[in-house]
Order: sequence, then C-alpha cells, then structure tokens
Amino acid sequence: MIFSSDNWAGAHPAIAESLVANAQGYASAYGTSELDRRVEQRFSEIFERDVAVFFVGTGTAANSLALSSANRAGGIAFCHREAHVNVDECGAPEFFSHGARLCPVEGARGRMEPAKLEAEIRRLPRENVHGGQPMAVTLTQATESGTVYSLDQIETIGSIARSHKLPLHMDGARFANALVSLGTTPAEMTWKRGVDLLSFGGTKNGCWCAEALVLFDLSKAQEMHFLRKRSAQLFSKSRFVAAQFDAYLAGDLWLDLARHANAMAQRLADGITASAGSRLAWAPDANEVFVVLKREAAGRLQRQGALFYDWEVPHDLEGSLAEDEGLYRLVTSFATRAEDVDRFVAAC
Amino acid sequence: MIFSSDNWAGAHPAIAESLVANAQGYASAYGTSELDRRVEQRFSEIFERDVAVFFVGTGTAANSLALSSANRAGGIAFCHREAHVNVDECGAPEFFSHGARLCPVEGARGRMEPAKLEAEIRRLPRENVHGGQPMAVTLTQATESGTVYSLDQIETIGSIARSHKLPLHMDGARFANALVSLGTTPAEMTWKRGVDLLSFGGTKNGCWCAEALVLFDLSKAQEMHFLRKRSAQLFSKSRFVAAQFDAYLAGDLWLDLARHANAMAQRLADGITASAGSRLAWAPDANEVFVVLKREAAGRLQRQGALFYDWEVPHDLEGSLAEDEGLYRLVTSFATRAEDVDRFVAAC
Amino acid sequence: MIFSSDNWAGAHPAIAESLVANAQGYASAYGTSELDRRVEQRFSEIFERDVAVFFVGTGTAANSLALSSANRAGGIAFCHREAHVNVDECGAPEFFSHGARLCPVEGARGRMEPAKLEAEIRRLPRENVHGGQPMAVTLTQATESGTVYSLDQIETIGSIARSHKLPLHMDGARFANALVSLGTTPAEMTWKRGVDLLSFGGTKNGCWCAEALVLFDLSKAQEMHFLRKRSAQLFSKSRFVAAQFDAYLAGDLWLDLARHANAMAQRLADGITASAGSRLAWAPDANEVFVVLKREAAGRLQRQGALFYDWEVPHDLEGSLAEDEGLYRLVTSFATRAEDVDRFVAAC
Amino acid sequence: MIFSSDNWAGAHPAIAESLVANAQGYASAYGTSELDRRVEQRFSEIFERDVAVFFVGTGTAANSLALSSANRAGGIAFCHREAHVNVDECGAPEFFSHGARLCPVEGARGRMEPAKLEAEIRRLPRENVHGGQPMAVTLTQATESGTVYSLDQIETIGSIARSHKLPLHMDGARFANALVSLGTTPAEMTWKRGVDLLSFGGTKNGCWCAEALVLFDLSKAQEMHFLRKRSAQLFSKSRFVAAQFDAYLAGDLWLDLARHANAMAQRLADGITASAGSRLAWAPDANEVFVVLKREAAGRLQRQGALFYDWEVPHDLEGSLAEDEGLYRLVTSFATRAEDVDRFVAAC
Repeated sequence: MIFSSDNWAGAHPAIAESLVANAQGYASAYGTSELDRRVEQRFSEIFERDVAVFFVGTGTAANSLALSSANRAGGIAFCHREAHVNVDECGAPEFFSHGARLCPVEGARGRMEPAKLEAEIRRLPRENVHGGQPMAVTLTQATESGTVYSLDQIETIGSIARSHKLPLHMDGARFANALVSLGTTPAEMTWKRGVDLLSFGGTKNGCWCAEALVLFDLSKAQEMHFLRKRSAQLFSKSRFVAAQFDAYLAGDLWLDLARHANAMAQRLADGITASAGSRLAWAPDANEVFVVLKREAAGRLQRQGALFYDWEVPHDLEGSLAEDEGLYRLVTSFATRAEDVDRFVAAC
Repeated sequence: MIFSSDNWAGAHPAIAESLVANAQGYASAYGTSELDRRVEQRFSEIFERDVAVFFVGTGTAANSLALSSANRAGGIAFCHREAHVNVDECGAPEFFSHGARLCPVEGARGRMEPAKLEAEIRRLPRENVHGGQPMAVTLTQATESGTVYSLDQIETIGSIARSHKLPLHMDGARFANALVSLGTTPAEMTWKRGVDLLSFGGTKNGCWCAEALVLFDLSKAQEMHFLRKRSAQLFSKSRFVAAQFDAYLAGDLWLDLARHANAMAQRLADGITASAGSRLAWAPDANEVFVVLKREAAGRLQRQGALFYDWEVPHDLEGSLAEDEGLYRLVTSFATRAEDVDRFVAAC
Repeated sequence: MIFSSDNWAGAHPAIAESLVANAQGYASAYGTSELDRRVEQRFSEIFERDVAVFFVGTGTAANSLALSSANRAGGIAFCHREAHVNVDECGAPEFFSHGARLCPVEGARGRMEPAKLEAEIRRLPRENVHGGQPMAVTLTQATESGTVYSLDQIETIGSIARSHKLPLHMDGARFANALVSLGTTPAEMTWKRGVDLLSFGGTKNGCWCAEALVLFDLSKAQEMHFLRKRSAQLFSKSRFVAAQFDAYLAGDLWLDLARHANAMAQRLADGITASAGSRLAWAPDANEVFVVLKREAAGRLQRQGALFYDWEVPHDLEGSLAEDEGLYRLVTSFATRAEDVDRFVAAC
Repeated sequence: MIFSSDNWAGAHPAIAESLVANAQGYASAYGTSELDRRVEQRFSEIFERDVAVFFVGTGTAANSLALSSANRAGGIAFCHREAHVNVDECGAPEFFSHGARLCPVEGARGRMEPAKLEAEIRRLPRENVHGGQPMAVTLTQATESGTVYSLDQIETIGSIARSHKLPLHMDGARFANALVSLGTTPAEMTWKRGVDLLSFGGTKNGCWCAEALVLFDLSKAQEMHFLRKRSAQLFSKSRFVAAQFDAYLAGDLWLDLARHANAMAQRLADGITASAGSRLAWAPDANEVFVVLKREAAGRLQRQGALFYDWEVPHDLEGSLAEDEGLYRLVTSFATRAEDVDRFVAAC
C-alpha cells in the first residue's frame, strides 16, 4: 500500500532490460551515438514535427534549463503557486537563470486562472525597470493537484503568453498521465496549443532516470547545447538515457503504463467515494488522488503500512474540512497493484 | 580497435544486472532508501573513516559542486592547465561558483609543478581585493595525460593548499585506475595526503552513470545537500546510482576493472615501444597512452577502423616531433580486449 | 508642489560644498584615503561600537550585498511583501545572491507581522531540501508605507531571526527619518535590537549619492571587501562618497534634515486631516504621507503642477475607499518648503 | 610627486562646480531628468550617430555590463592578458556574466596580437560544446601599458571579431588620453573601426565618479536597462553623473585635460630619456610611463616622497633588466604639475 509518490517505484522490466541490451559494445559519447540519434528522431515522430531533444537527468534540470533558455535580466517567470518549480526545486530555476524570479499565480486545483495570470503579467509593464520584466510562462501538465488542463485551457494560457511575447513552457513530469487522461496526441497537447518548450518526463512513469527537454522552436537548440553542458547535465554515456526512452516509447509502452497508473487512481477514487470513512477532496484526472480522512484514521492506515503524505489544504477549501480531518495525497504508478488499492479502500 | 575514450564503452554486465535486480519494488526517493544508505556506508568502509557521499550524474557535476562548496566572492581555484575542469566542462565550475575563476598552473604531463602552484597562489595576496582571492586547489588523479601523482606529490600539493588555508579537491574521474597504478589504498591516496573533497568516478570504469562526491570534512555536508539539489543533481530514483555502485564496489570489481584497463594500456605501450613505426610520447601510469605516429600512419590506422583522437602537443615537447608526426591519445577501458590491442600494434 | 519622491530633490548645499572642498589634492584610491578612514570612524562613534563600513553607490547595492553576505544554496530571505527589495530592485538581491529567493511576508502598513514571519520560516524546515533553506530576515525602517517599527517591534523581529539563527538586515534607505521619528539613537534602533547588517542611506536625505553598508558582525567584513569589489561597487575616488557623509554626519546635519522632512510630512498630514476634500489613509510616522482623494481631485491637483504618485490600495483597506477615490503617496524631503505644503493643502 | 594613479587625483574644479550648480531644485529620478537626456544627446553628437548611453558608477561596472550584454552559456570573452577586466576587477565580469570566462591573449605592450587572438578563438570551434563558446572580444584603449592601438590596429581586431560574429568592446577608462594621442575623433576610434560597445571613462580624467556605457547597437539598449538596474548601477539622483559629464564634455574640457596628462607623461619620458640614472622601458603613447630604475634609486625616490608602483616585468623583456633594476609605472593626470615632473626627473 505504497502511495507516497510515483518516484518510489523502480523501473519497468522492459526499461531495465533495454539497459542490459545496450550495455555491450562501444558507442560514441555525449549524445552522439546512433541510439541517441534514433531516439531523438522518435520524438519528432511522436510530436509530428521536427523537435530538438535534450536528455537530462532530472525533471528539475529540464524545467530549469527551459526557463534559463528564456532568461532575461530581472526576468520573471509565471507559474502556479503550487508548481513544482516554485515549491520543490530548491531554487534551481532561479539558479539556472542567474537570479530570475518566479511569480506565483493563483488558481483552483493546480491550474492557473487565466485572468490572474494576465493580471500578474500586466503588473510588470516593460517600461518599469524597477519591477523586472516578464520572461516566460510555465504550466504543469498534469498538475501537482492531480488535475489536467483541458486543451482549451492550454490554448488560453498559450494565447496570453503569446500576446505578451512570452515563451510557454510545460512541465510534463507526468506528461503521459495527462495525455491519456485527455485522450489526445502529444502534438495537440503541446505546440498546437502554444507550448514552446516541454519537460518530457519518463522517470515517474517507469524509467530509472530519463527526462527530456523538448524544444519546438529549433532556433533555441544551439544555445541549449551549451546551457545543458554548463549545468553538468550532458551525460558521457548518454545512451543509458536513450536506451530507457527507446523501450519506453516503443509500442506505446509509455501510454500503457500511464493508463494503468490513472486507472489505479480512478479505482482508488471510486473506492474512496463508496467508502463510509473517507471522501475525495476533488476528482482526480490523472494518477494523484487527494483524500479527506479523519486524522485518526490516517494514522491508523499508516500504522497498517500504508504510505502517503499529508497535504496542505488549499486556501479555498479551508472551511470544508472538519477539525479532526486532514487532507492526504495518494499517488499511483505503473507499479501499483489493484489488490493494494483494494486493501487500502477496505481499510478506510 | 576503439581507443577514443573510456566513456565509449557501455556498462559492465554486473552493473547492468544490478540495475535489473533493483528495479522491482518500492524504495523511498531522493537518496533516502536503504540501498542508498548501505552504499554510502560502503564508502566509509573503503575510505576508513566517516565520509559524506553525494551521488550525482556526471563528473562535471561532482567537480563543480566540490568547487562551489569552497566558493568565495572573486574566488580563484588553482588547477593544472590541461585539467578537465579547465578545458572540458564548458564553464560549469564557474557557473556553479557564480563566476569564480580557474587559474591554470603549469607542469609536465598533467601534474601541477608545486613551485608554480605556490607562485600562482602568492600572486594573489588576500589584501589585494582587485585580484580576487584564492579559494581552492584541485588536482586530477589520474591526470589527463595518463600519469599519476605519487603519494608524496599529493602530499606536497596538499601541504601547499593547507598552508594557504585552501581546501584540496581531487578529480577522481579515473580514481580506480590511479589507485591500482600506485597499489595503495583509497585513504592513503586522499585524506591522509590532505585531500578534502573527492570526485569519485564510476562511469569511465564500467558504470552507466555513477559519480559520487565524497566529503572528508563532514561540516560541509549540510550545505552540500542544498547545493546538489539546487543544481538539479538530486535524483528521485537515486537508487539507480546506488545500485551501480553496489555492484561496482562489491568484491573489488572496481579494482579488477581498473587493473584490466591499465594492463591493456601497458600492453599497448609495450607493443608501441617494440614497434618500428611508432613510439611512446611518454610512459603511461594508468589507462591512457600517448603515442607519436607519422600522420600518414595515423590516417591509415583510422581508415582501418582504429578510433583515437589527435592530441595537442605540450609546449615542452614541441621540438621533439618531426614535421610529419602527430601526437595521439589512446584510451583503454574495462572493455578493451587484448586482441584489439594486438591488432592495433601489429598495424602500427 | 513636488511630492513624487525624496530622490527628486538634489543635494544639500553643505554636501555639495564638501565635494568642492575635497576636490583638490591627491588621495589614495579605493577607499583607503584618510578621509575615508575618518568617516568610517565616525560611523563607529555614531553606533557606539566598532562597525565595518562599506560605501556603495545605491541602496539597492547595499541591500543586495547585505543579503549576499548571508547567502546559502537555495536560500530564502524573508521581507515584507511591499519591501523595496521585493518590488523595486529588478531582481538585484536575487542576482547578487546567485538565485536566492525572497519570501514575502504580510503585515499591515509595511511592517511584517511577527506571527506571519514565524509561520513562513517554519514552512521551510532545514531537513526539507526541496523547499530551500532560510538565510536571512530583512526589514525596512522607515517602511515603504511611511510607518516606523517601534523598538519593541524591531526587537521582536530580531528575536525571531535569532531563534532561527538567521541574520537580520535593516534597509535604512530612510534611516534618519525613522530615527528622529522614534527619538532614539542609532545603536538602540539597530544592534541593540538584533540588527546584524544595515543599509544606511544618505541619498534620500540630502546627499547626491551616498550609501553605506554597515556590518555589526565584524567577522563578515573580510568577505564583504570582495563581494563589494566583485559587484563593481568599489569606487576608485571613494572619497567623493566619504566627503558627502563627512558633511552629512557633521553637527547633526543628517538629523536636522530628517526632522525637517518629517515635520513637512506632519504639516501635510495635519492639513489633509483638516481639509474637506481629502483624508489620510493612515497616519505618517516619517516623511511619506498616504492620502485618499477623489480621482477627479487628484487629477486637478496634478494639472495644477502637483507631482505625486498613485499607490496600490493594500488588501485590507480595499473596502474603505469609495468608487471614485484613489490612494496617493506624497513624499517630503529636506528640500520641501512649508509654502508648497500649504499650497497643496489649500488646493485640496 | 604623486604618480601612483590617475585616480588619486580629485575632481577638476569645473566638474565640482557643475555638481554645485545642479544641486538645487527637483529633477525626475533614475536617469529621466532633462539634464540626463541632454547629456545623453551630447554623446550622440560626439559620436556622430545615435548611441544609447548608460551612466554607471565604475569602470568595472561599465566593462562587466558590456560583457554581460554579450553573454552566452559557457561563453568566453577574449582580452589581453594584462587587461583590467582580467587582472583588476575581482571577477566582476565573470559574476555579471554568470560564470562566463575570460581568455587571455598575448601581445607586446598591452595590445593583443591579432594572430594570437585569431588562434585563441579558433581553439574553440562552435561544435565543441565542452570547450565553451566565444562570446566577445574586448580591447583596452589606451592600454594598461600606456600604449595606444592605432586606428588600423583597432580595425584589424574589429574585423577578426566580426568574422567570428563576436561583438567588440572597448574599455575606454582612458579613452580621452588615447583619442588625443591619436589625434582622431571618437567616431573614427570606435564604431567606424568595428567597436560595438564602449566603456567611456570620465573618472580618471577629472571627474569624481562618471562612467558611461555607450552602445552603438541600439537593439541592445532595451535589455541593458534591466541589466544595469539588476546590477544596482541605476542611480536615483542620476543627474549627479550627468552634471559631471555636462561640464566634462563642454567646450572640449575633456580633451584639454587629457592633452595635459599626456603632455606631462611626455615631459616625464623626455626627462627620463635625458637622465643618466634611469631609462624608459618603452615609449608612452598616453599618460602612463614605464621606467627602468635601479631598485635602490627607486627606493630613494620613494623616500623623497615620490609615489609610484612597482610593475611586473613583461615576459618578453625579462632579459633586458639588470639584476638590480626594477620596472616602475608612473601615471600622470589632469592634475599633474610640470614642476613635480621636473622635480622627479631631477631626482632620478
């Protein structure tokens, strides 16, 4: 009953085996091997256009490099208040961008409210040098709240960014989970809606360590080679990332794994809804389920071996919990078993 | 006949298998798993004292974090002119250290000459704010020239650093190759000679992607947790690095692999020495062999499928090559086969 | 009727004359002249203890250097939401601190609420590497809202900082105005209440360009010499700053100028209070007056030649203004004449 | 007999008086006053084209901002080995450029040798991500050795920079001294020879604190407003710099002051040449004279009150000094009196 995080799972067997299969023999280093090139080409197929792909080691690296590529002096990037870049990356985006700043934008359930984004950008007119200058917008898909921006919602954010001449970055640490949730294509969920840079995550969905920064604007690729190397993210045996993505993207494995994770989340949500002692805080779109439990019950579950985290109650829901209730996050993954979900629900 | 670099080899089977063996099941993320802790403990055993260990993804990351841990405003780190940090890391050390500078020190065959190091440090007296201030010394073991500092030489560098109150960092991308070359212990080659921080490399010696920053001064560990995370080098599924080191450090595998690589280099060197058409530029201590060949012969070898790089002739050897000769670097690894060495020698 | 800002005034005649008087003759450069040393010594007298003084060119430089002196990886400095560092310095504090972050703290009228400061610090426990780590607290005296922290209030903030082992910085761009408002001494308002670093401003109170960073912790002085030089704030003809402070601090000129500015603000406030068509938004403590006017009246005043800025209505006062009213800031200075104040009040 | 440096002199009376004359009255802050605009316009007249002008406080700031405007990840700027940016700015250029690096280029008497500049740039082909990437060339006019690049020499450096698509920066801390030495115009010495950015120094030639960064490429101006503010170099009472330049540039005062300084240097050189006990190390072009003296004689002069600095002997002159001789630098300025020069020569 481990629902702590999708990064507590290990690697999918197909991915581990791909590493073994590629362990033999020589290959040119630093991302120049045939395998690297072939997998990069696969990204272009998946996104239905030429893209530039940069393998990196962590989602934080992909996000931070994306923002540093949009860097301006006194620059400000707009993100949701609860975005990973804002709360969980120890200032990496600011460090990579030499002191650029993140401006938190409000919005329910992890999605920026477009009117608030627009208002925050407008607070920084270009001629006011004291306030700094807007440099980028970044959204998370799926969000930190387990919700998903609809295509229209991405389009709206994208058009706000474009109207201010700001690049739009998508943090896709859970890209596959969002994709199968919407039942759409990678192209539709990204550049066709105005996304310019994408952190394409594999780690949370069955890889060991496989993240890719995808640039839809190829003119940014030349500088990114240096930005990546300068940040110590260019792996000499880069094929160890390529080999993971090779298996991950083959035969829709990545989508199957995400579908499984999402289905487990839905099973959990359904069970919670049907249970007497707990309720959903809000409906999940992807693989994170937010549950309201009596604190005592949560403690009991944890003593029974269930692992999950306490979560901060969003401002707009503060009144809706009883004194003795808490908000809890449960995350499913490719490795979650239905029986563990059922055991958890039964224990609720 | 691939002698381009030791990072062109893949992963040793035992290491790939360790990844498979650890792929199943859940483990707590971000370096807190039992496996992480156990492998960290293994480092303390190997170094015969409590050390703080930080797994990172690249040698550049380990080096840059080490230097950033010694950071001062206007700081200057002293390294050999040909050191990896100085010529091959695209400014990562400077970026991680917010603009600190590297001061190249001369010395034959990749080893800093102690008198020159001392002189360079003395050029920057603390009271001259305009020149900046010394902040660290870093040496590479084995060096970029395939040579190895003797224990006494490390001690000498260490005492110079200490006399100026500067921490001493060792770039051990080829730590194992140096260690078996000297036939000494990790403790003797590091902290017992004045080394304060060590980049302990696994990647070039049979791992996929396994580097560790080892701190002998535990008081620096607390800040390093934040430095590492801020530079996007804290892996969520950190056990994928731990699993590699687990196999690497088990039963002296790491030493065996290095011994093999060094032996292949020696076999190559012996063959070259015995050959008519080529000669050693200098004797190898570890797994890099520098050879003088007629350019025409080098071209012919390359057309026969041998892969190796041209190398810049050190200043002090400039007169020693004929017009039609070039200097070439050949690197052996755990994966080098004796038959390839022999074929190369025969073709010379 | 110019109330735009105290930095629209020029220089007090005594200060301009001091520059002329010191223009002749040679003096050693980069802050080492006799005049520099003498003026630095004057600071120690004023603060009743040995202090380290660093002349710099702007308040932004003093603030940013102060925070950079407390720098940690992933560091977070706590300030009021409306603090100058947070809204008017174009990311300089973050740039000087290599990407450290400012955390805005709420509080009425420009003063951080101690409970909220405590809560924000507690949200970042040291063991959570993802969130970053607290590094400093900074308060502004007088505040951006024209109010002044009482000595007890500074003491409270100071004890919170101390309990978390964080240095406390005071942005004293309007230090003199606060000092005479409280009728206390420099020592009482700073280190005796827990302040560790002070930006001591002269520019807004009659100097051309004279700011000093004052360190009460002398152990930080050595590194500050390099931090200042590295940020291009070490003036070669440093005595041009020293000469300004020499006149500024002689015979209590600085306190007299601040008293005048505050008195003009009080005269303005009294006039506003007595007027029919305007009212104070809150009572001023120093030299900034916040006034509620009908927008139409504000426009008329501006057409009559009065200069002052619109101001954003604080959240907690949003309901208290009528539809057709606006909030306006009026700043007085050493140069403000009573007759201009009276003309303005009459025109209200 | 003070020949330590031109920044040991104070301010010319006309400049000090301009500060007094502009001390009265209000002016809009942060570089927006009428005076600021008028003086900026004066720069466009002087340079015979529209230029963007940014007043800053130090030459180090102007240089560092110029380089940061050309910043690239892993970027490398090429300068003479003895350039001020390389030896006297405590890493400010690197800090402002987030860790970009300076590559020293050799050349006799402070002037980069074009062939060596070309060779250094070629060592960093764009496709080698490990080495970093060229980002700018910077030359100093007049040089740190008191020499001046001829117009043809600037043109040559400019064409090398242009052929590699690198912006060319000129550090003109002693711009006026070089200009009158060549007897040319500001336009001819800068943009007509390929200079893109200029640090225009006033401080060493009679101002208190007046430096300007001049951009010939207006497309870089928008970002520079933010770069300057972010580095804490935007002065609120900016007119105090404008007022200095107003007097400095009026009626050719700046050229007259430089002519005087150069003439004093020439008088010194002539006297040294005619003297028995000393000789010129090389002929001065501007206001710095390098003299070979017996160490004993130098000590005697210093005991008689002459102030001047020891200087490091350039590599190519090492053999030309006797055992008991030293190299010394003497700097003249607008304030140097002929009688002091003559006293010094007599004492030699």
